Amino acid sequence: MQKLSMLYEGKAKRVYETDIKGVYIVSYKDDATAFNGKKRGSISGKGAINNQITNHLMQLLAKEGIPTHFVQQLSETETAVKAVRIIPLEVIVRSIAAGSLSQRLGLEEGTRLASTVLEFCYKRDDLGDPLVNSSHIKALGLATEEELELIKRYSLAVNDILSDYLAKVGIALIDFKLEFGVTEDGMLVLADEISPDTCRFWDVKTGRKLDKDRFRRDLGDVEEAYHEVMQRLLGRS
Amino acid sequence: MQKLSMLYEGKAKRVYETDIKGVYIVSYKDDATAFNGKKRGSISGKGAINNQITNHLMQLLAKEGIPTHFVQQLSETETAVKAVRIIPLEVIVRSIAAGSLSQRLGLEEGTRLASTVLEFCYKRDDLGDPLVNSSHIKALGLATEEELELIKRYSLAVNDILSDYLAKVGIALIDFKLEFGVTEDGMLVLADEISPDTCRFWDVKTGRKLDKDRFRRDLGDVEEAYHEVMQRLLGRS
Repeated sequence: MQKLSMLYEGKAKRVYETDIKGVYIVSYKDDATAFNGKKRGSISGKGAINNQITNHLMQLLAKEGIPTHFVQQLSETETAVKAVRIIPLEVIVRSIAAGSLSQRLGLEEGTRLASTVLEFCYKRDDLGDPLVNSSHIKALGLATEEELELIKRYSLAVNDILSDYLAKVGIALIDFKLEFGVTEDGMLVLADEISPDTCRFWDVKTGRKLDKDRFRRDLGDVEEAYHEVMQRLLGRS
Repeated sequence: MQKLSMLYEGKAKRVYETDIKGVYIVSYKDDATAFNGKKRGSISGKGAINNQITNHLMQLLAKEGIPTHFVQQLSETETAVKAVRIIPLEVIVRSIAAGSLSQRLGLEEGTRLASTVLEFCYKRDDLGDPLVNSSHIKALGLATEEELELIKRYSLAVNDILSDYLAKVGIALIDFKLEFGVTEDGMLVLADEISPDTCRFWDVKTGRKLDKDRFRRDLGDVEEAYHEVMQRLLGRS
């Protein structure tokens, strides 16, 4: 597979065209940003870790019936994925109150929610990725009603599958962000990444944060936490 | 009917107990606030106008099958209503982008929305009445699923009824806020007010704003606009 021109550079990844129709290459970076780009830095080894964690979890989800964009890992930091048109929504699934939810709704961080919270944010950096509901999504034409129903169903299923799986390695899944895309043949698939950049992972016993909050909140030992998650999931660091 | 002790004082109204079981008295004030209380002022005659407009529209809606808290107008500024436990949600129905929606989603004010937008805000002054969705409402226990379904159905019906009615007097209904309550015998009813304080009314021909935005945005002729709406709806000012 030949890596051709770069299509897109995001905060944590670059996406390239390839010589194979319907296939892109994703290349993970060590760059880290937070608070809509206001805080910038780098986490050494993050690109390789997030690539491998994402691929591990995407393959687990695929086995459980969730369609994903994953094709094949190419190197520690690069993966071949299905070419998709990304639906401009960040889908956030929450089991325990933390971060922006705690602040917005006045819930102490760590409060278990009585039922799963599912949020949609409109991917618009210039607007700060505002929270939207189904009626906004319909009025703005961000997804069809069929796509939205599938996205909701897949997202709740991903929560169940990942929560159970992570519990086995002593990690509580607090909340996470997903993105979905539509392939060239019209299939809705899970895209983007699933990593300590996009999930809140807390150690079940100690409550220690094993995710990007260590970077956001200057908690220290950021690299160590990312390595710890990889070690627990893949048996290597 | 005897007015007994004051139960609650809000930004624009006071609510009193009465000597009749299940009946409260609402007393409308001329006080005006905006931006979650940061801007304060007074609009002369507003209490009387909003009381009479609300009662006129509540009776119209009741005729069309929407249950409301309205019992009987007692004076220019006071009305007997059913005693309710207010559901802590502001329900916002939008046909045309304006105000916070325009700002949050980057839509020019006046853009017709492709479909009706229905928003819920959690009534919490200390949190700035944050936007919530069905999953937040369920997780926080703000309303039951049955209540929420009824609230959605009634709110969309109110939009249809009021839009048609106001069009006949040359007023475009841009957006509005509703509140619902549960009576002592467990019935969900439309409560609070429907007035230029809680709706955006634009003159159909000129686009002139006939609502609280004149106060919020210092557009002048605030009292005149409120009188104009009353005159068009009730034939008196």
